[in-house]
Amino acid sequence: MLNLGGPPTLDAVEPFLLELFADREIIHLPFQQWLGPFIARRRAPAVRELYASIGGGSPILRYTEAQGRGLVERLDRLSPDTAPHGFYVAFRYVTPRSEDALQAMRADGVERAVAFTQYPQFSCATTGSSLNDLWRTVDRLGLKEAFQWSILDRWPIHDGFIEAVAETVREGLQGFSPEDRGKVVLLFSAHSLPMRFVNRGDPYPAEIGASMEQVMRRLRYSHPHLLAYQSKVGPVKWLEPGTEWVIRQLAARGQKHVLVIPIAFTSDHIETLSELDREYGHLAESLGITHFRRVPALNDRPAFLDAIADLVREHLSSGQVYSAKYPLRCPGCVNPACRGIANPIPARSVPSERGA
Amino acid sequence: MLNLGGPPTLDAVEPFLLELFADREIIHLPFQQWLGPFIARRRAPAVRELYASIGGGSPILRYTEAQGRGLVERLDRLSPDTAPHGFYVAFRYVTPRSEDALQAMRADGVERAVAFTQYPQFSCATTGSSLNDLWRTVDRLGLKEAFQWSILDRWPIHDGFIEAVAETVREGLQGFSPEDRGKVVLLFSAHSLPMRFVNRGDPYPAEIGASMEQVMRRLRYSHPHLLAYQSKVGPVKWLEPGTEWVIRQLAARGQKHVLVIPIAFTSDHIETLSELDREYGHLAESLGITHFRRVPALNDRPAFLDAIADLVREHLSSGQVYSAKYPLRCPGCVNPACRGIANPIPARSVPSERGA
Repeated sequence: MLNLGGPPTLDAVEPFLLELFADREIIHLPFQQWLGPFIARRRAPAVRELYASIGGGSPILRYTEAQGRGLVERLDRLSPDTAPHGFYVAFRYVTPRSEDALQAMRADGVERAVAFTQYPQFSCATTGSSLNDLWRTVDRLGLKEAFQWSILDRWPIHDGFIEAVAETVREGLQGFSPEDRGKVVLLFSAHSLPMRFVNRGDPYPAEIGASMEQVMRRLRYSHPHLLAYQSKVGPVKWLEPGTEWVIRQLAARGQKHVLVIPIAFTSDHIETLSELDREYGHLAESLGITHFRRVPALNDRPAFLDAIADLVREHLSSGQVYSAKYPLRCPGCVNPACRGIANPIPARSVPSERGA
Repeated sequence: MLNLGGPPTLDAVEPFLLELFADREIIHLPFQQWLGPFIARRRAPAVRELYASIGGGSPILRYTEAQGRGLVERLDRLSPDTAPHGFYVAFRYVTPRSEDALQAMRADGVERAVAFTQYPQFSCATTGSSLNDLWRTVDRLGLKEAFQWSILDRWPIHDGFIEAVAETVREGLQGFSPEDRGKVVLLFSAHSLPMRFVNRGDPYPAEIGASMEQVMRRLRYSHPHLLAYQSKVGPVKWLEPGTEWVIRQLAARGQKHVLVIPIAFTSDHIETLSELDREYGHLAESLGITHFRRVPALNDRPAFLDAIADLVREHLSSGQVYSAKYPLRCPGCVNPACRGIANPIPARSVPSERGA
């Protein structure tokens, strides 16, 4: 289960930022070896405070483990042929890392492994970075032959995922009084991405649009909806419009009822608990949006556990090595390490044999 | 049936460009009153040549009329309660314009009208501009009370539309030999849009992404796919990656088989017949893409006529005035005329009463 991860304690904040700002696949800085640590250390105190305000650390490991338990429980039932199933967590900038997951898998005698991204929509900055790191680590640890791999690299419109998100929206709407419910604007918010990625052909914005449209169809387009991108940092151009800016525009027009839907993450984390709930919540209130709410994150919601179990079951029974799109690097890809795989399962279905 | 339209003859090219470059809802130029005509006249000879190369004019009126005939024939059968049905074409910069459609509707004694965009995905630059022009013309002609209106403002993932596109892809794949068919990359190409629109919240790129993903699901993700944006003009920033640039990148990687899928237009027009087939076709060939093909446009394909008939039937029976999203202006909208409607039908369903 691949994800970015987050610092579990306040002491883990600075090391986490140091690793993030050292990742040249994601962040390009001049003199990165010096400037990266400099920026990371300068940001650390403020970021520590944010984590302090949400309970002293990121809950993402806790939720990922709950998702993992729910997933394997269901899989053992749904797919007895491939049982027993186990789950391992591989975060990107904090333990447990790829190395921890791989060592534990070896110790447990695992033979067949699915690299399962926890990001529904593919971006080189998220799933791409996690997979590249995984294959590098497999190589470094000399575990190339240890496991047979396949990849579940994206699932932006998987029915179960869409239904689980729609369920959170329905619950979120219950937080408004019946008289107000008809006045709500649904604001989908996804983590932004530097335009450098987008312009070289990163599939992320298209897959975000696909997820949103599918959720709206599932809700029978009951309310007006909008898409915005949050969490931009630094001076370069990122995907717009920004979530904060959109909230300001809605407020200026007298919109009083807004329900925010995080569409690109499956667990609560700093961007939901701090940025959306606290920062934007306070901003919205101060601007006169009297009813600003966020739908609950998917976390360990049974409908979501059902969804990921269905997704993995489908993947295992398809015999696919990866999606047809996975081996096709972005048109402007500058990273020759992209879109690899270590020791893949024998290809069974046609699409998995294609690439470019 | 609202669309941009295109010059039917070579003599109509310059007047068409003059109108396009005078439209301040789409194009912002300094000293537009002078610079617009200057640019239009300067571009006219080259654009005339392009139209000459595709048979001496745009086929869009011919196809729109064929679509209209197929639509009303089917509607009379599918929805006898609302029969008889008629169709009127309203282009944006060439006859028949909104005014022509409205006069003909009045002469025919029409009472109930659906403003039906022929763009599956909504953008302020296309559907938005057509609708604003329609309501302005209704007003100018004093026809505010003449018809009762509803709006079919977008249909990016309508099942029939998606199936019709998928059918064109299957046909396009038949154009490759069985041995080559597995090596094809599907290149979805949509008309680009200035980032000025995107950054203020235009829904276009998200809806394009939704259409593409749905087509790929319908095709069971049989091939790798990519999205690119074509037809950028002028010096400002537009949505990227550009189709031409993507073709160059694919060629540089040794990709020999490419199938292009226009996803944002429903008829053949200059951007398919000239830009994709001729310009990019020659480019691709010169770069070593030995098998560069384009799927047929939807045009008067029966599956597409079935789709639009189903769409209108659904719309009529829903009693909706417009989509829930229509009245929600882009967060950064600068045009107070946006998202209007003249003399709407009485709202029956809840979503249509909501707005912001």
